[in-house]
Amino acid sequence: MKVGVPKETAANERRVALSPEVAGRLVKAGLTVQVERGAGTAASFPDEAYVAAGASVVATAADVFAQSDVVLKVQAPSTAEVQLCREGTALVAVFQPSAEPQAVSALGARKVTAFSLALLPRITRAQPMDVLSSQATVAGYKAVLIAAATTGRFFPMLVTAAGTLTPARVLVLGAGVAGLQAIATARRLGAVVSAFDVRPAVKEQVESLGAKFVAMEIGEHAETAGGYAKQLSDDTHRRELEFIAEHVKDADIVITTAAIPGKRAPRWWRTAW
Amino acid sequence: MKVGVPKETAANERRVALSPEVAGRLVKAGLTVQVERGAGTAASFPDEAYVAAGASVVATAADVFAQSDVVLKVQAPSTAEVQLCREGTALVAVFQPSAEPQAVSALGARKVTAFSLALLPRITRAQPMDVLSSQATVAGYKAVLIAAATTGRFFPMLVTAAGTLTPARVLVLGAGVAGLQAIATARRLGAVVSAFDVRPAVKEQVESLGAKFVAMEIGEHAETAGGYAKQLSDDTHRRELEFIAEHVKDADIVITTAAIPGKRAPRWWRTAW
Repeated sequence: MKVGVPKETAANERRVALSPEVAGRLVKAGLTVQVERGAGTAASFPDEAYVAAGASVVATAADVFAQSDVVLKVQAPSTAEVQLCREGTALVAVFQPSAEPQAVSALGARKVTAFSLALLPRITRAQPMDVLSSQATVAGYKAVLIAAATTGRFFPMLVTAAGTLTPARVLVLGAGVAGLQAIATARRLGAVVSAFDVRPAVKEQVESLGAKFVAMEIGEHAETAGGYAKQLSDDTHRRELEFIAEHVKDADIVITTAAIPGKRAPRWWRTAW
Repeated sequence: MKVGVPKETAANERRVALSPEVAGRLVKAGLTVQVERGAGTAASFPDEAYVAAGASVVATAADVFAQSDVVLKVQAPSTAEVQLCREGTALVAVFQPSAEPQAVSALGARKVTAFSLALLPRITRAQPMDVLSSQATVAGYKAVLIAAATTGRFFPMLVTAAGTLTPARVLVLGAGVAGLQAIATARRLGAVVSAFDVRPAVKEQVESLGAKFVAMEIGEHAETAGGYAKQLSDDTHRRELEFIAEHVKDADIVITTAAIPGKRAPRWWRTAW
């Protein structure tokens, strides 16, 4: 069986679906692995590393799609990429079918069997494949690094002969995997951290990381059976924004991580107070 | 007395010699403060903040130099800037006279009284003016943020269902103010840190931050009476580089902070092993 890895085509996407290390494991298991030239470059995996692992490098994405039984991608395929698939190809990627109905239709029309790792059930057995969690962990960590590099403030408290700098105040919206990692990283760097989440159950996790849980009384139940946050009614949502606005005033840095599965992550700002 | 603050002209320099807060204190003390338009912009201090503090904003650097009794700068003045000074002006800046003899000659010819904060004695009474230490602290902190943003590795150890990521290994060369801050910040972020310094006396400080002190036997005395590192003989220096090279092999990240006062900070790399 031939496994193919095209170069990602989405803007700002630096990841690749397969590392040389895992490519080597597939080769050892008897599979043939083909990687598009330069597919791993942005992720610091040069072509030579794939070759050293026993994979072959092919010139174009068209070659990968035409010659593979299983195609591995990070992002949902573009319509053009779906057209490159042979009928009967299998595709593994990370995408939200409900958010990308066009890709789903195109895959169906092309008779491609598609697996979305974003829909992996949240069960113990599936944890080693839980890319949502691993990517959320990276995102929460990186968000804090970006914030620390951007802000004019020191994160830790600094006591010097010339005076004392108070620590930066960070507000994290959403205490899922990304939010908890952001809280932990900001705390490690010495910031004073508070966190908001519509799910009262995460209070303990937030506090165990040394952050303050900012609680708002919400009448409705805000958590799905699977443990994800669920969309709130318009009225509750409006009250929630008012409530958050009060806390944003006191923060030097706001990190937004709250996301409803299948929806675009919310952006939060307000220009007038 | 008129105090003037020109915009810095050196490449990549984002600092300004006076913040609006301190400008306000000088104004309250009865001084007149003039700031060149846009002088604080890159440091996130807009002109309006200086005006609100009671300072006035003037259009050009020539205005600042022509009308000021005392000029405050971050970097040593360029020859062009010295020419703009009136005779008898006083200049306060952070520069190493021994490293910038041209600036010193120009200042002397122009009869400018220049104070270099880099030459401030290392005594208790002078600590609130110790800009070398405060800037070294920022540099050590920032170096780690840049390293964390650049490396492909997570700094902290990460235990996940899909496997464990070992922490990043950081080697810090030089354990002065910048080095100790780099060690502390990298440790906070969860890295495994080791540090090298020619001064055996700093071993305890390095270890108190949770880092490993990498010791090399050096025959000569490597510390000045003032506590700074001193330049070593060629032979010792060569052995030192060989020694460091061994430790660089094991590191994911190397942060160089070692500097001899008055000398350019050393760069350290080696392409072949």
